[in-house]
Amino acid sequence: MTDEVRVLPWQDLHDFTKRVFVSVGMPEEHATQEADTLMWANLRGVDSHGVVRIPWYVENIGKGIINPTPDIRVMVETPAVALIEADCAIGPVVTNLAADMAVEKAKGVGIGWILIRNHTHQGTMGQYVQRIANHDMAGMIFVCSRPNTAPFGARAAGVSNNPLGLSAPARRHPHLILDMATSLVAMGKVLVARDRGESLPVGWGLDEHGNPAVDPRDLATLLPVGGPKGSGMSLLFECMGSLMVANPLVLPVLSGELGEAKTTGHVGRMARHNQNSVVAAIDVSRFTDMEKYKAEIDSLIDHLKELPRADGFDEILMPGEREERCYAQRVKDGIPVPPATIAGLKKVADDTGIEFIRGVE
Amino acid sequence: MTDEVRVLPWQDLHDFTKRVFVSVGMPEEHATQEADTLMWANLRGVDSHGVVRIPWYVENIGKGIINPTPDIRVMVETPAVALIEADCAIGPVVTNLAADMAVEKAKGVGIGWILIRNHTHQGTMGQYVQRIANHDMAGMIFVCSRPNTAPFGARAAGVSNNPLGLSAPARRHPHLILDMATSLVAMGKVLVARDRGESLPVGWGLDEHGNPAVDPRDLATLLPVGGPKGSGMSLLFECMGSLMVANPLVLPVLSGELGEAKTTGHVGRMARHNQNSVVAAIDVSRFTDMEKYKAEIDSLIDHLKELPRADGFDEILMPGEREERCYAQRVKDGIPVPPATIAGLKKVADDTGIEFIRGVE
Repeated sequence: MTDEVRVLPWQDLHDFTKRVFVSVGMPEEHATQEADTLMWANLRGVDSHGVVRIPWYVENIGKGIINPTPDIRVMVETPAVALIEADCAIGPVVTNLAADMAVEKAKGVGIGWILIRNHTHQGTMGQYVQRIANHDMAGMIFVCSRPNTAPFGARAAGVSNNPLGLSAPARRHPHLILDMATSLVAMGKVLVARDRGESLPVGWGLDEHGNPAVDPRDLATLLPVGGPKGSGMSLLFECMGSLMVANPLVLPVLSGELGEAKTTGHVGRMARHNQNSVVAAIDVSRFTDMEKYKAEIDSLIDHLKELPRADGFDEILMPGEREERCYAQRVKDGIPVPPATIAGLKKVADDTGIEFIRGVE
Repeated sequence: MTDEVRVLPWQDLHDFTKRVFVSVGMPEEHATQEADTLMWANLRGVDSHGVVRIPWYVENIGKGIINPTPDIRVMVETPAVALIEADCAIGPVVTNLAADMAVEKAKGVGIGWILIRNHTHQGTMGQYVQRIANHDMAGMIFVCSRPNTAPFGARAAGVSNNPLGLSAPARRHPHLILDMATSLVAMGKVLVARDRGESLPVGWGLDEHGNPAVDPRDLATLLPVGGPKGSGMSLLFECMGSLMVANPLVLPVLSGELGEAKTTGHVGRMARHNQNSVVAAIDVSRFTDMEKYKAEIDSLIDHLKELPRADGFDEILMPGEREERCYAQRVKDGIPVPPATIAGLKKVADDTGIEFIRGVE
């Protein structure tokens, strides 16, 4: 096992990822989409959503939680909306489909609003709203998951920290790509604090007894951003997503229907992974002149970046800008992969009987 | 002038409000809608958005900023979307229209997504998404305004604290009605602190030099909820609302096009009041069984309210629940109106030559 960070060309990681997913039964085209998704994240520095997740995906395909050969069906369709049954597909396969359907419907009637039920992990939200922005459209996605965040006023999980993506196309600048969650911080930041041996600030999360988690290893439940704001958005997303598609994710955990005792801790942790999403595209050109629109977005960005800066800021960054810079560098120089991640990937190669990336010990 | 809080029947305040707006040239049907809007807020305890605003509305009708006889036109329309030119209409008149159009379109194709350009103050967002929920639909609204909030990393205004409303219909419980803004706190809370002589916590806002505002009277710029989260949502809302309808609200302030010098303070304060909105309705019954949907929302609420409570909380409240309780009480007992508000309303009565509420000195 290597004991240093290796910088690998994205093509090698992409190829390996594809071979892994084919080896566990996924059609090559689906495996390619999953590899694209993980590279999207790694190339943009969102390593928490990159190849580090491969062992978890493979494990969950083995358990039957992720279906490598899903029967994806459109259950409801009008010129403006659709409901897609994902049959536990891995997220990107069905979310790319939904984004493309949203774009097609938006071309027809100005908006496409696609609900996806019963899918699994999608990677970052940014990739899907960027895909929509690339069609000169504004994009939106929100995702519903098991409860992992305390609703405002509670000391136990009862909402999810729903990922939310929004986008608008620019011309000279990268598209505006917001990718956030309704918790104050993402779990990734908690893991970083853990690995650095740092304590958590109050407000990040609670331990299993519902008290503020100080040691990152004790964090059982996240806290919502802005108290009732993040909490309320999350609750409404569950209603506009999961309940709308008859696949509730929070209720069966809270009611104990999934067989867990109610605790003050991260009650969702043990529940079968499952998600629902809403993906929307709005056709800018239906409402205004596309060239003027993009020019105004560029100009708005220029003026925002010229505002006087807060203490401690060298620069005012737009949503997605840091990630686009990282992309420009990593697509050229490669993706740094820590030894623990390499070890995990090598084990996957051994377990699935495929060749690892050549030249990497 | 009375020097005590008067508790007035909502009918008297509604009647007075209607007469005020008719007296300044508004058609009776529009004046009634505005009166409904202000009562919606006062009855629910959101007094910052109730009759206290009447003097400001009347002043802005006088200045030509609010148009009492707007030529409201549908500029773009498909089975799913529309763009309404509001001609500086007072908010409720055109937003009720948009909500009703959204509902009609959602009945047809599953979603209605209505953009409104060039309107003025709407009151609370809750009323519009409740109106949609009353049709057994999920509702969404977001509003774009002049910059009054510092983008993440800046020490001056460059985004708005966009109001956002989301709703989902319940049966046994009141509908879920989220009504929030993308700033950490609303200006109303700053005014409450001012009236109590309290200092502001760090994170609420900045003074005109871009330093943390300690004295509420010094607050020039709000700060976004969750740093890049509130800031990013606000920026994307401006792009999905204002730029989409070719009526930018932030850009002309930042560029100085409106004639103001750029300052580190609340640059939007002097800009002509103007707004754009997006109002959407999603037809639940298109995707799932309506009775099952509402029963699951009721059940979800029941279980959330049973979660163990955080310190300092007697109860876990749902979005909009506190307001619905206030409504139940005030619709019966009347609306408390402070002396300063009464004085402001009496002055409006004098200025517009109409009779004030009988029996109120």
